[in-house]
Amino acid sequence: MADTLIKVDLNGSAYDNDKIHNRWHPDIPIVEWVEPGDDFIIETVDWTGGQIKNDDDASDVRDVDLSQVHFLSGPVGVKGAEPGDLLVVDFLDVGAFPDSLWGFNGFFSKKNGGGFLTEHFPEAQKSIWDIKGMFTQSRHVPGVSWAGLIHPGLIGCLPDKKMLDMWNTREKALFDTDPGRTPPLAALPYAETAHMGRMKGDDAKKAATEGARTVPPREHGGNCDIKDLSRGSRCYFPVYVKGGGLSMGDLHFSQGDGEITFCGAIEMAGWLHLKVGLIKGGMAKYGIKNPIFKPSPIKPDYKDHIIFEGISVDEGGKQHYLDVHIAYRQACLNAIEYLKKFGYSGAQAYAILGTAPVQGHISGVVDIPNACATLWLPTEIFDFDINPTAEGPKKFIDGKIDVPLAKDL
Amino acid sequence: MADTLIKVDLNGSAYDNDKIHNRWHPDIPIVEWVEPGDDFIIETVDWTGGQIKNDDDASDVRDVDLSQVHFLSGPVGVKGAEPGDLLVVDFLDVGAFPDSLWGFNGFFSKKNGGGFLTEHFPEAQKSIWDIKGMFTQSRHVPGVSWAGLIHPGLIGCLPDKKMLDMWNTREKALFDTDPGRTPPLAALPYAETAHMGRMKGDDAKKAATEGARTVPPREHGGNCDIKDLSRGSRCYFPVYVKGGGLSMGDLHFSQGDGEITFCGAIEMAGWLHLKVGLIKGGMAKYGIKNPIFKPSPIKPDYKDHIIFEGISVDEGGKQHYLDVHIAYRQACLNAIEYLKKFGYSGAQAYAILGTAPVQGHISGVVDIPNACATLWLPTEIFDFDINPTAEGPKKFIDGKIDVPLAKDL
Amino acid sequence: MADTLIKVDLNGSAYDNDKIHNRWHPDIPIVEWVEPGDDFIIETVDWTGGQIKNDDDASDVRDVDLSQVHFLSGPVGVKGAEPGDLLVVDFLDVGAFPDSLWGFNGFFSKKNGGGFLTEHFPEAQKSIWDIKGMFTQSRHVPGVSWAGLIHPGLIGCLPDKKMLDMWNTREKALFDTDPGRTPPLAALPYAETAHMGRMKGDDAKKAATEGARTVPPREHGGNCDIKDLSRGSRCYFPVYVKGGGLSMGDLHFSQGDGEITFCGAIEMAGWLHLKVGLIKGGMAKYGIKNPIFKPSPIKPDYKDHIIFEGISVDEGGKQHYLDVHIAYRQACLNAIEYLKKFGYSGAQAYAILGTAPVQGHISGVVDIPNACATLWLPTEIFDFDINPTAEGPKKFIDGKIDVPLAKDL
Amino acid sequence: MADTLIKVDLNGSAYDNDKIHNRWHPDIPIVEWVEPGDDFIIETVDWTGGQIKNDDDASDVRDVDLSQVHFLSGPVGVKGAEPGDLLVVDFLDVGAFPDSLWGFNGFFSKKNGGGFLTEHFPEAQKSIWDIKGMFTQSRHVPGVSWAGLIHPGLIGCLPDKKMLDMWNTREKALFDTDPGRTPPLAALPYAETAHMGRMKGDDAKKAATEGARTVPPREHGGNCDIKDLSRGSRCYFPVYVKGGGLSMGDLHFSQGDGEITFCGAIEMAGWLHLKVGLIKGGMAKYGIKNPIFKPSPIKPDYKDHIIFEGISVDEGGKQHYLDVHIAYRQACLNAIEYLKKFGYSGAQAYAILGTAPVQGHISGVVDIPNACATLWLPTEIFDFDINPTAEGPKKFIDGKIDVPLAKDL
Repeated sequence: MADTLIKVDLNGSAYDNDKIHNRWHPDIPIVEWVEPGDDFIIETVDWTGGQIKNDDDASDVRDVDLSQVHFLSGPVGVKGAEPGDLLVVDFLDVGAFPDSLWGFNGFFSKKNGGGFLTEHFPEAQKSIWDIKGMFTQSRHVPGVSWAGLIHPGLIGCLPDKKMLDMWNTREKALFDTDPGRTPPLAALPYAETAHMGRMKGDDAKKAATEGARTVPPREHGGNCDIKDLSRGSRCYFPVYVKGGGLSMGDLHFSQGDGEITFCGAIEMAGWLHLKVGLIKGGMAKYGIKNPIFKPSPIKPDYKDHIIFEGISVDEGGKQHYLDVHIAYRQACLNAIEYLKKFGYSGAQAYAILGTAPVQGHISGVVDIPNACATLWLPTEIFDFDINPTAEGPKKFIDGKIDVPLAKDL
Repeated sequence: MADTLIKVDLNGSAYDNDKIHNRWHPDIPIVEWVEPGDDFIIETVDWTGGQIKNDDDASDVRDVDLSQVHFLSGPVGVKGAEPGDLLVVDFLDVGAFPDSLWGFNGFFSKKNGGGFLTEHFPEAQKSIWDIKGMFTQSRHVPGVSWAGLIHPGLIGCLPDKKMLDMWNTREKALFDTDPGRTPPLAALPYAETAHMGRMKGDDAKKAATEGARTVPPREHGGNCDIKDLSRGSRCYFPVYVKGGGLSMGDLHFSQGDGEITFCGAIEMAGWLHLKVGLIKGGMAKYGIKNPIFKPSPIKPDYKDHIIFEGISVDEGGKQHYLDVHIAYRQACLNAIEYLKKFGYSGAQAYAILGTAPVQGHISGVVDIPNACATLWLPTEIFDFDINPTAEGPKKFIDGKIDVPLAKDL
Repeated sequence: MADTLIKVDLNGSAYDNDKIHNRWHPDIPIVEWVEPGDDFIIETVDWTGGQIKNDDDASDVRDVDLSQVHFLSGPVGVKGAEPGDLLVVDFLDVGAFPDSLWGFNGFFSKKNGGGFLTEHFPEAQKSIWDIKGMFTQSRHVPGVSWAGLIHPGLIGCLPDKKMLDMWNTREKALFDTDPGRTPPLAALPYAETAHMGRMKGDDAKKAATEGARTVPPREHGGNCDIKDLSRGSRCYFPVYVKGGGLSMGDLHFSQGDGEITFCGAIEMAGWLHLKVGLIKGGMAKYGIKNPIFKPSPIKPDYKDHIIFEGISVDEGGKQHYLDVHIAYRQACLNAIEYLKKFGYSGAQAYAILGTAPVQGHISGVVDIPNACATLWLPTEIFDFDINPTAEGPKKFIDGKIDVPLAKDL
Repeated sequence: MADTLIKVDLNGSAYDNDKIHNRWHPDIPIVEWVEPGDDFIIETVDWTGGQIKNDDDASDVRDVDLSQVHFLSGPVGVKGAEPGDLLVVDFLDVGAFPDSLWGFNGFFSKKNGGGFLTEHFPEAQKSIWDIKGMFTQSRHVPGVSWAGLIHPGLIGCLPDKKMLDMWNTREKALFDTDPGRTPPLAALPYAETAHMGRMKGDDAKKAATEGARTVPPREHGGNCDIKDLSRGSRCYFPVYVKGGGLSMGDLHFSQGDGEITFCGAIEMAGWLHLKVGLIKGGMAKYGIKNPIFKPSPIKPDYKDHIIFEGISVDEGGKQHYLDVHIAYRQACLNAIEYLKKFGYSGAQAYAILGTAPVQGHISGVVDIPNACATLWLPTEIFDFDINPTAEGPKKFIDGKIDVPLAKDL
């Protein structure tokens, strides 16, 4: 049995665990050292640090403090890792805790976080998903279940100072183009709720003012929310500081491409069993700027899909120029309309798109002026047949259950 | 043997074939009628109508007349089809002609068409791909071959007048925001090179001035360039006019998600074996705005990939807000840099991304401010191992061959 | 376009084509020579040489002359090939003729050929399968259609004299253990209907008396009837004579593991597009006795199955010792009983098992005294849901159609 | 968290656990009752009850007491289950214990158990396989690792008295044809080492004399050793006694088709998370004699294979009539010869075939006199390239390590 290097207490506060941090900064001290070739286990809390409960009340989603996220376990140092190397990480397995076999999916209020379809679902809603062996189902979304494509939403190495400064500079520049926007254009450093791991005293206070928020994916990987970076895959991370400093969290039992619900995926606490290696000088050898990875040999194999197209004409009929974001939004809205014909509420359909292993493909990006995106909805996750027929759809879902909503205050 | 309803002459001009047209207009007369349940064969020229030759000179790509594209075969009428129905099309098979077993891929000059990476590849280049049974390879791009995911880039039903007007209005509005741009923001109606099929005289002249260009995908489908709408798949098209009026063309032997080279895919002439059916009133029954489709049970199964990430920070380091287009461009550029380490020129790497069955996934669209896109490069298409190793890449490609380039005049 | 080295005339007699032969003998003259690296096309008649017709009368199956089979096209010589080499054959594509888009499946009479379930289906029956693009369906077996896993049932190099003698000796020894058996234990040389290709005169007469029959698979490959040796695959054949002498035939549009109906698969005439190469001394290098091969990257991907188990207790309840043949027969009989609950006749169910891409797995061969075999029936080939439910099966098939039967005379 | 209904102590004797039994008999009392729709966890010891140790000495394999096997956990009763029903079992997950992350593979001595290739490997050998997350590797077989296709080798419902008598009668009849054979033709009831669960006193003594051994698969399923009846799959078991009486054990981390090494697979202790349901009267509704099952949506996806053919001519050159058992043995021997060219010992190659997810297909069973079987060896489990090339194989394995052997005493 591999050693568990970092343990978490789901009943305590993440702030009390000095092997957890919630900002990116080069000076956060490494908490455990391993050798290349070692395999070990890392536990993590859920991304919010336990703010969301397993109940039928979405007010916790509405009132979430997003300045706290994401709580990451680490950094782990790998002996011999130096800037310019590639840190090779095998995800030997990822799972939930036996005494915490559930996860949550939510839509944030447009006033506090928002999401991909926030104009259509502006108020906070929450669904709870039970984990039954390799499968999941929800008391709030009947008629579906599927095998988990379990993965960490967030993992990467510590940036060096130069990269950190670059992140802060470019994000601030964007933020300043519309500083009053809700939701904001970027999440800037915010010292008040920073957890700087084992940094203490004035050093920690100073670092907290400049530590990059964990929200976006960046050159080091970070919050990529790539569903296929799942257990069984192998990832090659750029190293910027001595030892690498690998941190991780934001575990998902399952998620669709795009993590469109933002309080996205089926969010859970859990553990990762990792093995590490090094490619010395790998960044230059392979011309690497962002992580690259290889898919897992073992993951859910849902082959049959209904595929929805979207183009970059928005809900108001306005033409946009090769905008894949808008095209994918249209494909998602098309899928939601389709699912409603079988009896689902819009919120249930939206929750399915955010949690099931749907694929989002960039299908066309050159045919001016319309980008084309496709949303691939697996048919096998439904208890009934959702394929189109000459007879038309049957309302299998009776509408008695919906996703709990908490009105804005 | 199914009947061939539309034949083409690869040695003649597409303008001389009145079962071909190159604009969308509700009044283009249906040239063949079929019954629901029928299967039949339709031949098509390549999208440019034969402007590009099987040689080693890219000047034809540089000088292409894009106002002529795309030459479509049709419209085919289906008896009983009425506005609001869904036309069910089974792609029983799609293929090249036995005497024309080749296709082309090109990068247009930035001055005449451009492409996804036109800032990086601003001049015209062309590669020729031979078709050998189910496989393809190119004398301009050594070291790769793969099985074709053969599909029509463009297929859809005729719009009605209201939809046509909507298309023209919204695209003109976008065009007018920067009318002098090169390449333009939208391709507007252009009568001079219009081919209105069997419309004749003044009717044809008038329709030519308002016929929508075939370049973008739209509500009816059209130029979606979705690689997975391939032979063996089933598509459900919205019907807007009596009989449907199904037209098609722009056959591709293979293409990557995004068709990033624009003169994209491996472009070819060929034939489609189709079977048609109807879902009466299907648009309302299933809430359909754009076509939906089901994947094929038989298509190339390249499972192993190297996956490249890209985020929405552009080449100059500027931060963009959740822009998947830019994120995917970065993923593509990352893949090109990687392939260059094995000896490929940038142009060869770009050609591979445009022609091989690469996947482009919308991986994250909510983690402000960075969108995250992934480019999945199948490893099995290479004659050598392109996986990262501790030793670093080996230059398998000696650089003696490159993709022909024609300088701007 | 690759050259067609061997052409066939479906309206003529295979005996009139001297590029066809129906026995294995080292002295059959090579009819075409190719270079390593060449690709070329070979046409073949169906395995019976046109004895079976596209009609609804099974008397041709009942009266078939099995001493004539299989009519093979070849031998093709590869320059430089010598005994001990491996001949590398890429199946670039395989297909039916455009003017002969159909195939047949039959059960031979127990008195003339028999088959895997001949005790259960002792009389001749025949079903005709239409080829529609990549798919097939039958007017005799309603409710099913699928994509073809097209392959040659029979391909291999000429044996040398020593190998030929070994074949004849060991098969004669088996035959002699029960010489009067019907069907016989082995098909011995039979000069009367032999077609020795370009051999003429006394040489041909002598060779006909010793030429091995083409019925069984042997060390060189031959009549393996392996459904996965399909278009897109690569096979490595042992070479025994100078030039190799590759011959082939017995094309199948589709077949299940085991080819259980014997007049098995969906038998058709057609063509193969091949590419050849050599591994010099490959037999010793890799310790090769029988051919090895690699699967195709493009073949039907039917993933969902109902899996039937069978054990080596026969229909009479008698226990056999680890007999996989009997176990697989029980699994097939179990599947037939299951399909009958949906309205199929036994003959229709048997025809489905012989023609659809069912898998037959050797599941357990050590748990004395029972072997365990499994029959994997793809569910996606049915127009209706054949999964078990609490409600029980619904008779989707009304029984009005059956597989034509010709009574023994 | 589901309840664990049956717990085991890996440090104690299986005989001391009255929720374990090692014979099939209708009167073994049900130890736990569940409702249809319930999910629950069952722990099991390894099939030998801990006789085999995690060390480098094969004497425990040589000296194993096979009369004790298999130790099964159960029987579990399902309320409402009656003879003629189908018991629907979802394998929600299956796994090893965190403190016992290893398994063993062995070849029994020909004098004590034997195996599929016992003539070639007549003495006891043992390899130990470590479980690292979803993957396994062995210190005795270098150069390979793969993801586990975890499954119970043995599961089924209690027989009724009539079925038990039929089993004993037919197996005794076979045994009596050669009573002195080693290994024996069948494993007959043997009271001395019987563990009859909660049966006590004279009842237990009598039942032990007639309880069927657990070695072979039979009508109820039992020791099928079907690798694809894995976690995530759904199985439909015939019910013969009130409550069903479902028992299970013999967990495998991985196994190839055929379980050819007999002390086969990677044998381990562990747990199953099951969910149960009922189809009332399902045996008659669907014509079920043996269990049927549906594959898992999540299992290792090794797609690329080298495929070895075998025909029913034995090692001595003798011709057998359509004997799939012999054909598969030849395919296995061919694969072993091939792997030896890369440096593996024969025993290592044999161990790979027994433990890796190799497929064994019944390819041809009608082409007299040769059956044809194929062995599919996944290439992706090797750390190096095992495909054939013009250069020939490279000895990646240096032969310093081998599978421990214990000579017969």
